[in-house]
Amino acid sequence: MLKLSRVLPLTSTSRHRLLEALSPRKVEVGDCLRDRPEFTSSSAGISTAANSYAAKGIALYKWYTSDRVFAPYTVYKGKAAFSLSPCLPTFTKLESGSVVVDRRGTMMMNFMHSIGERKYDWEKRQRFALSATEVGSLITMGPQDSCEFFHDPSMLSSNAGQVRKSLSIKPNSNGYFVSLTVVNNLLNTKDQFSVPITAAEFAVMKTACSFALPHIMGWDQITKQQSRGTAGLQPKSGSQVLDLEWEK
Amino acid sequence: MLKLSRVLPLTSTSRHRLLEALSPRKVEVGDCLRDRPEFTSSSAGISTAANSYAAKGIALYKWYTSDRVFAPYTVYKGKAAFSLSPCLPTFTKLESGSVVVDRRGTMMMNFMHSIGERKYDWEKRQRFALSATEVGSLITMGPQDSCEFFHDPSMLSSNAGQVRKSLSIKPNSNGYFVSLTVVNNLLNTKDQFSVPITAAEFAVMKTACSFALPHIMGWDQITKQQSRGTAGLQPKSGSQVLDLEWEK
Amino acid sequence: MLKLSRVLPLTSTSRHRLLEALSPRKVEVGDCLRDRPEFTSSSAGISTAANSYAAKGIALYKWYTSDRVFAPYTVYKGKAAFSLSPCLPTFTKLESGSVVVDRRGTMMMNFMHSIGERKYDWEKRQRFALSATEVGSLITMGPQDSCEFFHDPSMLSSNAGQVRKSLSIKPNSNGYFVSLTVVNNLLNTKDQFSVPITAAEFAVMKTACSFALPHIMGWDQITKQQSRGTAGLQPKSGSQVLDLEWEK
Amino acid sequence: MLKLSRVLPLTSTSRHRLLEALSPRKVEVGDCLRDRPEFTSSSAGISTAANSYAAKGIALYKWYTSDRVFAPYTVYKGKAAFSLSPCLPTFTKLESGSVVVDRRGTMMMNFMHSIGERKYDWEKRQRFALSATEVGSLITMGPQDSCEFFHDPSMLSSNAGQVRKSLSIKPNSNGYFVSLTVVNNLLNTKDQFSVPITAAEFAVMKTACSFALPHIMGWDQITKQQSRGTAGLQPKSGSQVLDLEWEK
Repeated sequence: MLKLSRVLPLTSTSRHRLLEALSPRKVEVGDCLRDRPEFTSSSAGISTAANSYAAKGIALYKWYTSDRVFAPYTVYKGKAAFSLSPCLPTFTKLESGSVVVDRRGTMMMNFMHSIGERKYDWEKRQRFALSATEVGSLITMGPQDSCEFFHDPSMLSSNAGQVRKSLSIKPNSNGYFVSLTVVNNLLNTKDQFSVPITAAEFAVMKTACSFALPHIMGWDQITKQQSRGTAGLQPKSGSQVLDLEWEK
Repeated sequence: MLKLSRVLPLTSTSRHRLLEALSPRKVEVGDCLRDRPEFTSSSAGISTAANSYAAKGIALYKWYTSDRVFAPYTVYKGKAAFSLSPCLPTFTKLESGSVVVDRRGTMMMNFMHSIGERKYDWEKRQRFALSATEVGSLITMGPQDSCEFFHDPSMLSSNAGQVRKSLSIKPNSNGYFVSLTVVNNLLNTKDQFSVPITAAEFAVMKTACSFALPHIMGWDQITKQQSRGTAGLQPKSGSQVLDLEWEK
Repeated sequence: MLKLSRVLPLTSTSRHRLLEALSPRKVEVGDCLRDRPEFTSSSAGISTAANSYAAKGIALYKWYTSDRVFAPYTVYKGKAAFSLSPCLPTFTKLESGSVVVDRRGTMMMNFMHSIGERKYDWEKRQRFALSATEVGSLITMGPQDSCEFFHDPSMLSSNAGQVRKSLSIKPNSNGYFVSLTVVNNLLNTKDQFSVPITAAEFAVMKTACSFALPHIMGWDQITKQQSRGTAGLQPKSGSQVLDLEWEK
Repeated sequence: MLKLSRVLPLTSTSRHRLLEALSPRKVEVGDCLRDRPEFTSSSAGISTAANSYAAKGIALYKWYTSDRVFAPYTVYKGKAAFSLSPCLPTFTKLESGSVVVDRRGTMMMNFMHSIGERKYDWEKRQRFALSATEVGSLITMGPQDSCEFFHDPSMLSSNAGQVRKSLSIKPNSNGYFVSLTVVNNLLNTKDQFSVPITAAEFAVMKTACSFALPHIMGWDQITKQQSRGTAGLQPKSGSQVLDLEWEK
């Protein structure tokens, strides 16, 4: 029988510690905007956008300087902790006006070492961004399955191969071990995290990842198009779905 | 073969009894706002909010004094009944403008004793708030699995340990027993509820909880951000997801 | 191996026949509004609503006289056909301003006899409205499971027991038989429909019903509340989820 | 144990090649609008729509000439690649004001041959549009299951039978083979594509298709109706769901 006692982060003390952690350095907390220099540089892109959004009554500036929502799912254990949070894709508007996915979305994981009772070292955290396909393998894992992902953050750069990250999820007696290893030949460091999680915590990860997957793929933007304006627009037409395959 | 006859609450009489029950004491019906004194006290918070929402054309006052939607899933059985309803998280806006989860959301359960034909004692009900992780264990339960959760409502207070609540879900011949025990050493009372549910009723609970989980985690607010304004904003950029892991 | 050829309704001819069928008698096509006399009678209710919705820029009148969306999932077979479509719950606004579910939502099924090649007798159709719990048993059915539901449309009336409807879903070689029997002692009639469906068609029904379930329960209205205005409203607070269980 | 290395399309080079591919010929990239001549021809339909949408503050013209969102899930392998993207249904507004599905939605697949390192021949791609029922069979496939679909793009035309398309998904050692064969007796050509996918890639397809299914069925438009205006509108009523089955 599975037994659960109230998890740590639900206590107000740890919650407030989390808030403090977020407050000063929010742009580092699984934040996907800080990595978008264009927001300060390309004013053209902004202005265009501002116009189109002004029509929709959205205050663009305010939006990007505030209202960023943070709701990571965090698992705190004795020696380490990790948080999981969706990182939405970015889109590019082409001259044609079409909008295409530019940078894919990910499920961002942040690992922290414990540095005292209910204290975790945010400064020395390590990040691992799960791609849609990696999320796909996570959500199909059975109780006895395990998976391992390898990332090279410097891939395609002169430093290719200098830093190696590997994330593994392996079954244990009553759940899984979630482990991250980061080998950095440039800094000559090796960092390891291992967080045991219960089947229930993994179930939350799987359900939340299944919910987030279409969003990090950008499919929610496709399905939203109709609610933004096409329903009921088309007069009757005899053309068939088959035409879609046929016409070119 | 599983057979179902029309469930009681679908009769207009019992539905109206439910309405009466809700009407006078709605703020107690799985209501998550009543536990937020700040709505009357901290006028600053309100005013700030009012401004930001006025921009979005939302009448804040009206919102909190009405329009609260109640749609609990209630299972009425001979000796007791329980209702299940999502309780959304609360968010805190930091000085930085970031919005972080303050109080986590839960799946709120309310248990009531039967006090006559189709009558249940709402006054003496007992509540049990399932955390995201507890919901995780519920939605992964197989036909033969069982789970048990323990809560101490006075945890971290001087009354710690004086009140113990335990919720258990255990398989029986054609479904599960959902039981709540509340031992209160302060009032010197022990309260027990046991509600047998069918596999179909449990399936509704699992499906509804899977739907609600991302919402009580606050992830729907994260994925909604884009629809609130980022799609198509970013000019092309060569930066990779990998950068997200690398940059600091 | 499962093989599928293009299903009938995808041909433009049958689609247009469907449109014709819908056009003249749309209010009968799984329409959930026609059964709400209050829309013509209780002008008070309307006006109140009109006011509150005018604020949201929604043209109430237009809404109820048009824009009704019909997208039933219909399975056409040799001897009969049935369609499946979600029927949203209705809500009641209490004096307190709270909104509670009045009439539960259902998954509405309409069965029709074949009366010629690709022709089905809409006039003599029979309806069966699956409750949330009945949907729960449908979506948990395994390949070898079967289920049967019994409804008495005149339940609680003087005609109780005069009409009996039973819907059964039973496995066959490569899918299921979906059968409806309606015995009417008042009209002295017995009507039977049996539609064989493939595993793929049942998969669509299960996935679509799982999607629709939270909506017919009204939970989408609960989770929508936050996006309608509470995110980021609450100042920090030390109160815990546990309080929710404790305070009364 | 399943191992994944970073997938090709995540490199900025291949991503930009994708953007270039999309830019000039966006209307061909799984675009569902190009097959709707009415947008240029039937001005009546447009104007009507424009009015109704103007009320909702949506710039109709802008919408259809831009803001089209493309976020296909693409699997690039050595000899071929395919992309998967939801194609929303079109709706028809009847004189009565009711909105019915005109052309069903599909999951559109585009297959391309490899013509060099990380180069795929978009010009000679072949399309295959999965119907809701075909999606149903895909999302219920177990690890050992396979399925095959046959389409005749010229069905019901004088060219019926001249072109045959068949899509098959068959299990292999660590995933599936997704294969498309197009035999065209008019052009006297036979085109074959075979793309091996991992279990993880198939999991993404299944999860994304499960998310998209209600949308291609148009059910999201049904469930959206309430949020567009009915919640809290109905005064109390004693009528039951059962009435829905009974009244005619």
